Amino acid sequence: MTAPLFHDVPRFPRGFRCASRNVGLKPSAKDLTIFVSEVDAAAAAVFTRNHFPGAPIILGRETIRGGRLKAIVANSKVSNVATGDRGVTNARRMATAAAMELDTTAERVLVSSTGVIGVQLPVEKIEHGIVGMAAELQADPLVGAEGIMTTDTHPKALSASVGDATITWVAKGSGMIEPTMATMLSYIFTDAALDAATLDRLLRQAVSGSYNMLSVDTDTSTSDTCAILANGLAGAVDEAEFARVLAAGCVRMTEILARDGEGAEHLLRVTVRGALNEHEARRIAKSVLNSPLVKTMVHGADPNVGRLLMAVGKCFECTIRPASTDAWINGTQVVRGGERLEFEDAVVRNTLKAEVVDLEIALGVGEARATAYGCDLTKGYVDENASYYSS
Amino acid sequence: MTAPLFHDVPRFPRGFRCASRNVGLKPSAKDLTIFVSEVDAAAAAVFTRNHFPGAPIILGRETIRGGRLKAIVANSKVSNVATGDRGVTNARRMATAAAMELDTTAERVLVSSTGVIGVQLPVEKIEHGIVGMAAELQADPLVGAEGIMTTDTHPKALSASVGDATITWVAKGSGMIEPTMATMLSYIFTDAALDAATLDRLLRQAVSGSYNMLSVDTDTSTSDTCAILANGLAGAVDEAEFARVLAAGCVRMTEILARDGEGAEHLLRVTVRGALNEHEARRIAKSVLNSPLVKTMVHGADPNVGRLLMAVGKCFECTIRPASTDAWINGTQVVRGGERLEFEDAVVRNTLKAEVVDLEIALGVGEARATAYGCDLTKGYVDENASYYSS
Repeated sequence: MTAPLFHDVPRFPRGFRCASRNVGLKPSAKDLTIFVSEVDAAAAAVFTRNHFPGAPIILGRETIRGGRLKAIVANSKVSNVATGDRGVTNARRMATAAAMELDTTAERVLVSSTGVIGVQLPVEKIEHGIVGMAAELQADPLVGAEGIMTTDTHPKALSASVGDATITWVAKGSGMIEPTMATMLSYIFTDAALDAATLDRLLRQAVSGSYNMLSVDTDTSTSDTCAILANGLAGAVDEAEFARVLAAGCVRMTEILARDGEGAEHLLRVTVRGALNEHEARRIAKSVLNSPLVKTMVHGADPNVGRLLMAVGKCFECTIRPASTDAWINGTQVVRGGERLEFEDAVVRNTLKAEVVDLEIALGVGEARATAYGCDLTKGYVDENASYYSS
Repeated sequence: MTAPLFHDVPRFPRGFRCASRNVGLKPSAKDLTIFVSEVDAAAAAVFTRNHFPGAPIILGRETIRGGRLKAIVANSKVSNVATGDRGVTNARRMATAAAMELDTTAERVLVSSTGVIGVQLPVEKIEHGIVGMAAELQADPLVGAEGIMTTDTHPKALSASVGDATITWVAKGSGMIEPTMATMLSYIFTDAALDAATLDRLLRQAVSGSYNMLSVDTDTSTSDTCAILANGLAGAVDEAEFARVLAAGCVRMTEILARDGEGAEHLLRVTVRGALNEHEARRIAKSVLNSPLVKTMVHGADPNVGRLLMAVGKCFECTIRPASTDAWINGTQVVRGGERLEFEDAVVRNTLKAEVVDLEIALGVGEARATAYGCDLTKGYVDENASYYSS
């Protein structure tokens, strides 16, 4: 993991602050967050490709067309998905309530909701609960991260410098996570001066190798949102360096989200190299990452290497040559030419107990590579999801 | 479930018998089975599409080209996969040993192995252990089913009549199950007179709507084999009736395999209708069936209906119209026009506790339909697979 890039304690770029509160959606935990920029910011966003997008996604696609945002308002507990026209009306009311509190217009407010699907949003609680939050704005991004948690075990924020500017990531994840546009909710703030079109391009590049290679459970959320806001208060930055730091931070946040996947005890990274093309590298890396038999093997620290080959081999449409396929578990080669190597069982078993497990597959058919990010499959995942709706 | 079609106690067609033994691959449970026809039988088979097929699959593809079989020899505990040239040599030795014991040639013997991947087959134990098995041949197909069990909780056999002929299914399943040609190991025996080409065509038809719609865990085995043997001792049958019974038996065996998936407590059936075409119907049914969040919801009897929409909606490339999408859980409508309906929570919660859970999705975009077969996701699955290799 790339460590020195990130600040020891995450902080906001110039001009950004946040607040969070309990407004009565959850019994007592924080359930509403606002992020605010002092001045309007250039903005871009990517959203879930699920065919049943939540009401905030439907509204958000409209909002982001303007390319400018002053604030984000997000609630947890109820995702406002599968709620019909009333859901969209409620999302608009939420934007309006935030705009009134923050002295801006609803068109400058991005709305997100996360939590259970198929329940109408208690929008009055949000309208009443948000009043006075502008007076509570503060400089710690973890405060905002806390208000958007669902089954996350900790709030998630990161920050890094690019020249004189700062980039800050705030996200939540945990379950129903295999984004194909963005993760559950991920907000990126910067004081660099970049226009909306540039932000959009850089965001899509960064997301491609990070959030879009993340999978906790193959289930693509109906609420995925990744937005970036640049308020320009730090002036211009070197675009190449900005892109590099943006991508690195998205990868690091992806690792944090994977490690905190529902029930997870390990961060699992699967790297495929020597693939015919990038599409196949990504497809095969995801196949290994998502295999329940690989995930339980990592959970049990059981070096059942045949499962790696199985999970590569079930990508029927990909170019795979058993005779040139090699594999490694945390640096120890376990497969050569499609055959299981003799290896020190105890050594591999021990390395599988590490918090981070790296599986590497070399296909020997081309030059493309990809890395996918996920976690082990545990009884904790089953426990959390056998009664999520009721709990 | 279609009950009256099948005999109360499964039996073999004329001329088929089997035997099973412990030959020392497992500590004491049966681990070697032979199935034998009195006379050579016309035969067809389909195998896994995994890119890393086991040695018995490599040999079996060669054997089945002859279109005639007299016997099947199958062992459990070691799958002889990822074992290189030595694995194929050992598979041939296993065929030869069975041929010698049964007074036929190796070309008339189909070999199967199931169990752990990446371990060389202890072929001497099989060569010694098989001697004398011809004297133990008997009429109960469950005896043969017992010798091929891995994590299955019970041996699996079915039989049904077609006119004067009989069809008998023997199978094992449990984990690493999402066949795309056949399930783990499934053998079908009949005394009807049908040639190899006809058998091949009928088998592929039957498998398409049954084993190929089965998934326990999305993981496609490297050993999948489904073979049919017709020894002709009952003479000609009505082909259409034969095809109908063959398909029905394959569906029923698929349900039995799904219900006995690793850790399973429910049989889960997902039917999609009103799809644009059959490909999309199958794709969406599998997506819902395989969603960990749907599977844990069924496990927890928690009517979190938003997860059904999520799992339909993540089929990005399919034609889906939220406004025409309806859904039912065991006959109770829970979604209309893409919105969650108000329903009696306790009623749905109660019906989800049934051993068989039927989820039905009507897409309203076309006429195609498909049903997929699987099971819930439980802590038992995690337990079994976190230490399968070691145990």
